[in-house]
Amino acid sequence: MKQLLLASTSTVHGSGYLEYLFGDLSDFFCNSATILFIPYARPSGIGHNEYTKKVAEAFEKIGKKVTGIHEHHAPLEALAKADGIFAGGGNTFLLLNQLYKNHLLAPLRDAISDGVPYLGTSAGSNICGLSISTTNDMPIVYPPSFKSLGVVPFNINPHYLDPDPDSTHKGETRETRIKEFHKFNTQPVVGLREGSWLMANDHTLTLKGLLSARIFEYDKTPYEVAPDTDLSDLK
Amino acid sequence: MKQLLLASTSTVHGSGYLEYLFGDLSDFFCNSATILFIPYARPSGIGHNEYTKKVAEAFEKIGKKVTGIHEHHAPLEALAKADGIFAGGGNTFLLLNQLYKNHLLAPLRDAISDGVPYLGTSAGSNICGLSISTTNDMPIVYPPSFKSLGVVPFNINPHYLDPDPDSTHKGETRETRIKEFHKFNTQPVVGLREGSWLMANDHTLTLKGLLSARIFEYDKTPYEVAPDTDLSDLK
Repeated sequence: MKQLLLASTSTVHGSGYLEYLFGDLSDFFCNSATILFIPYARPSGIGHNEYTKKVAEAFEKIGKKVTGIHEHHAPLEALAKADGIFAGGGNTFLLLNQLYKNHLLAPLRDAISDGVPYLGTSAGSNICGLSISTTNDMPIVYPPSFKSLGVVPFNINPHYLDPDPDSTHKGETRETRIKEFHKFNTQPVVGLREGSWLMANDHTLTLKGLLSARIFEYDKTPYEVAPDTDLSDLK
Repeated sequence: MKQLLLASTSTVHGSGYLEYLFGDLSDFFCNSATILFIPYARPSGIGHNEYTKKVAEAFEKIGKKVTGIHEHHAPLEALAKADGIFAGGGNTFLLLNQLYKNHLLAPLRDAISDGVPYLGTSAGSNICGLSISTTNDMPIVYPPSFKSLGVVPFNINPHYLDPDPDSTHKGETRETRIKEFHKFNTQPVVGLREGSWLMANDHTLTLKGLLSARIFEYDKTPYEVAPDTDLSDLK
């Protein structure tokens, strides 16, 4: 049975990397001996080794080992044998492009369907939606498609930001961008604020954290859902 | 001889659509009887007719007529006969996708090379760079390529925003995003603040407006350039 923990961000203000999630991650990965880490999103362009080291240091605090998928001579085999997966944040285009390039997108989807617990933060959550078309990232590389894992039946907008009523800046607000998305796409979009995450299995999908999420459905007025709302009917 | 006016934004805070540019636009389009408008970027998803109407109302104030390229039965012919072109802002992916789809990218490049004055704002400026990979927009449609007009030998980041030192938000700053771009691309990026524009011909390229621009060159510390700086060596 599918087990997903999809977080808006790895880090909340005033707290260490993944720290706000440690309690939940201990439970989530209780049967995972080692976490297979996918470092492809490369935040600020850091290398795969450096990123994996940072993640390993964080998981050490909850007694979990980490290996980077790039360290394996046979990444496909590593994925097939994994009993816990984490795809970290950074640039979503880069992450998706590298998954396509290494022929890992379908195997990753299969591993998730087979019930391997999957943690995503930011870009790593974004790729679980139907497409990456609601990412906030800069398109620094051109992936073969914007279609992504589709292990949830909607799109995710991580780091969701409310419009700033005092802003004099003329760049589009996040809400405007998502409304533009809905001129050309019909799937719902979950605007996930920093500090929020989704917990999903085959039967339930629940909003977690202290904040509400903003839901954008095609041809509907956007609305807020409170923490612990069951979103399993959203599609 | 190429004649470009590439603005960061169509509208500055507290002023009407294109209003801050009216003085310069009267000079820039002094030999243009009619402006051919490209409405494909569809800000907030508005339709081509509605967008063209808004632009026509603005240009009326400086005594210029406007036709939308979508109103012409033969857009290619309209482009070949144009004596003034304006590509407005909105979504850059949509604008570029529609130019590819309608086979207008190369003809538009040719018209610019032939010396037809071209005004771009926001997305319309972004497509003049080598690629749209430094857009801020959401990838709501998948264009056949990120390669764009390349009528200036660098990339543009419109609506450039300085990092907010008081922000608690963990989404990437604009500078971080452009640094990530430079892990995979080597062309310079001009971070063009709202209220700034570039004036270019075959020999000169000058920053205009009251603000400095931030220049990002591959493997160099970003730096500021003052208004009226000649940027024709930037490549």
